[in-house]
Amino acid sequence: MKINGTPYRSVWIDEKDGWSVHIFDQTRLPFALDVLTLVTADEVAHAIKTMQVRGAPLIGAVAAYGLALALRVNADDATLEDAAAMLAATRPTAINLRWAIERMLNHLRPLPPAARAQAAYAQAAAICDEDVAQNEAIGRHGLELLRALAAKHGPQKRINILTHCNAGWIATVDWGTALAPIYMAHDEGLNVHVWVDETRPRNQGAALTAWELGSHGVAHTVIADNAGGHLMQHGEVDIVIVGTDRVTRTGDVANKIGTYLKALAARDNAVPFWVALPSTTIDWTVADGITEIPIEERAAAEITHVAGRDDAGQIARVQVTPDGSTAANPAFDVTPARLVTGLITEKGCCPATQAGLLCLFPEKGG
Amino acid sequence: MKINGTPYRSVWIDEKDGWSVHIFDQTRLPFALDVLTLVTADEVAHAIKTMQVRGAPLIGAVAAYGLALALRVNADDATLEDAAAMLAATRPTAINLRWAIERMLNHLRPLPPAARAQAAYAQAAAICDEDVAQNEAIGRHGLELLRALAAKHGPQKRINILTHCNAGWIATVDWGTALAPIYMAHDEGLNVHVWVDETRPRNQGAALTAWELGSHGVAHTVIADNAGGHLMQHGEVDIVIVGTDRVTRTGDVANKIGTYLKALAARDNAVPFWVALPSTTIDWTVADGITEIPIEERAAAEITHVAGRDDAGQIARVQVTPDGSTAANPAFDVTPARLVTGLITEKGCCPATQAGLLCLFPEKGG
Repeated sequence: MKINGTPYRSVWIDEKDGWSVHIFDQTRLPFALDVLTLVTADEVAHAIKTMQVRGAPLIGAVAAYGLALALRVNADDATLEDAAAMLAATRPTAINLRWAIERMLNHLRPLPPAARAQAAYAQAAAICDEDVAQNEAIGRHGLELLRALAAKHGPQKRINILTHCNAGWIATVDWGTALAPIYMAHDEGLNVHVWVDETRPRNQGAALTAWELGSHGVAHTVIADNAGGHLMQHGEVDIVIVGTDRVTRTGDVANKIGTYLKALAARDNAVPFWVALPSTTIDWTVADGITEIPIEERAAAEITHVAGRDDAGQIARVQVTPDGSTAANPAFDVTPARLVTGLITEKGCCPATQAGLLCLFPEKGG
Repeated sequence: MKINGTPYRSVWIDEKDGWSVHIFDQTRLPFALDVLTLVTADEVAHAIKTMQVRGAPLIGAVAAYGLALALRVNADDATLEDAAAMLAATRPTAINLRWAIERMLNHLRPLPPAARAQAAYAQAAAICDEDVAQNEAIGRHGLELLRALAAKHGPQKRINILTHCNAGWIATVDWGTALAPIYMAHDEGLNVHVWVDETRPRNQGAALTAWELGSHGVAHTVIADNAGGHLMQHGEVDIVIVGTDRVTRTGDVANKIGTYLKALAARDNAVPFWVALPSTTIDWTVADGITEIPIEERAAAEITHVAGRDDAGQIARVQVTPDGSTAANPAFDVTPARLVTGLITEKGCCPATQAGLLCLFPEKGG
C-alpha cells in the first residue's frame, strides 16, 4: 500500500546489496517512519521479539528471511536447524511463524549447503508474494460482505466496521487481512468508517491501524477497547472484522487480547463477527483453542507504562500504575468458534467450523 | 481509610476556618497526594468536571458542599437555584449528584436565607456521614459473598476478584462500594487478590484502585481492560464486583465504559457478577437503562493522550494516536439487568430486578 503516494511492502530486500532485509520499525509508528536494516538472523529474532515487526503473517515472512541471512554466513545443517529453532522460539502464539519456518526447512534440508542461501532467499520471496496474493484474495471475498451491507444501507448511510488490533498491510507483507476488504471498499467508493480499538497494552490500533487508515484516506475513529459493546448496543457497529494469529481446525480464533470480549458483545447485539486470515494461519493439529493454544505472556511494563509522543515531540513513555503494583499481560485470547459468524480466507468465506474449513480446504480432510 | 497509617475521608471541612472544603486532586494520584482547597461553588463545579473529584457517591457529597459555599456568600433564592443548576450540570450520568442536590434544595428552600448556609453545611455533613455508614453496610453484606467463596476454597486458594474502574474509598466519602467488602475481607484475613482493570481511557483502575489497594496492603494485579475475559475462561476469576453511577428500578447498571463487556464475559464463564451501590444510586424514575440513561461523551484527548509519570518523575502525557486521527469517548455503558447476578446495597443483597429492589426498598413501591 502507499505511504504519501509511494507504494511499499512491509519487508523487502535491499536493492543495492541484494541481501540485507528492510523493515519498518513498528515500535516507532505513527510518529516516525524508520526503516531498519537487518543483516543477521539474531537481528531478525530481536526485531520479532521486540515487535519492531509484528502481525502473524509478517513475522512468518520476516523469519523466513532470517533463515536466509543465517545461511548466507554458514549453510551447514547445524546452522540451519539452530537458526530455525531460534526464530521459531521468538513468539509462541502465531502459527504462521512456525508454518513459514517449517516450509523453509522442508525446502532447504534436502539441498546441498552451497545451494541453500540462494534457495532460502527465493523461498522467502515466494512466501512474501504468496502472502500478498492471498491477502488480495481475502480482500475480494470480504469486500462482498461490505457490498452487501452497502446495498442494504443505501449510499447515504455509512458502513461502520469495528476492528481490534492491527490486521492491516503492515501486519502482513501487503494489503492486510481484516483491513484488505476495507481498503477495497474504500477504493471503490463505498461509504466505510472504521471504529479502531486502541488495543491496549501496545496500542496497535491507536498507533498502527489509525495510521494505516489515515494514510490511505479511510474514515476512522479511535475508541477505547472498553467502548465497542456500548457502540453495538446503540446500533453504531454494522460488522466486526478482525485478524487472527491462529485458527484451530474447529474454528476457534486466537487473536489479540480483548478480541473475545468484542465477539461476546457482537453476539449479544446480533452484529456479524468475521475473522480474516490466510490459510497459513490455520493450525490443523489443534481442535480446542482455549486449552491447546499457548498464550504469550508479555512484560508487565507494557501494562504499567504507555509509550507515545510527549509534548516536546519525542517518543517517550509514562508510568500509569503506582510504584509497587504488579501487572499481568496475556497478549492473546481465544474466541470460541460459536461466537464467530464466519471466516474470510483466500479461498472464500466459510463458517467457523471444521466442516466449513474442510469445504474450502478439502485436501486437509482425512 | 488510611494513607500511610493516617485515616482520611475523601472530602472534609478545613479544621481551622471551619468552612473551606478539602479534597484530594485525584488527577494527580497515584504519583502525588495533593490536597486542594475549594472556596467557591465554581471551584467545586470545576473540580467535578475535571475529575479532580470523581466517583458517583463522592461527587454528590462534594456538590452538596458546593451549595454550602455558594450560600455562604449569598443565600437568596436565585443564588440557591443557580448554584444548584450549575452543579447538577457538571456531569450527566451519575444519579447521586442529582439526588444530593435535590435533597439539599428540599431542605434549604423552606428556610429563611439567613439560616441557609449553616443548614447547608450541616446537611452536606449528614450526606457524608450517611454515605460512610451506607458503604460500611455494603461492605458487610458483600463480605458474606467473599466468606462463602473462602469457605468453598479453603484457606490455601486465593479468592480472585475482578473489578473495573474505581469504586473504592476515594470514589466515596469513605470505604468505597465495590471495594468495601474487599477491605473487610482482607482485614479479617481472607486470602483475597484483586484483578484491577486499568480502565482506559482515564486509567482509574491503574491509577486509583491499584493505589488504594496497595496503600491498604491488599494483593492486586493490574491488567489491561482486554484481559478479563481470558482470565475468566481460564478459571482465574471467582467473582466480579463493580460500582455503578446509576441503577434503574429494573436493575440495569450504568457504570464506567467497558463494564458491560466484563458482564458478558462473566455470564459466558458462569462467574458471578455483582454490583455494589448505596440506594442513592438507584434512579426509580428510569426503567430502561440503555435508552433512558444519558451517557456522557468526554473529550477525545482522553483517548488520543495518556497521562502518567515520565522517566524524569514529572506528571506528563503522551500522544498515542497519529496526528489527524479523531477519537470518540463515551464514558459509561449500561449493563442489562439480565447479566447482573445481584446488587449489594446497604440494606442487603438482592436480584437485579424491580421485585428484588422493592423487597429491600418497599417504600419505593406503589
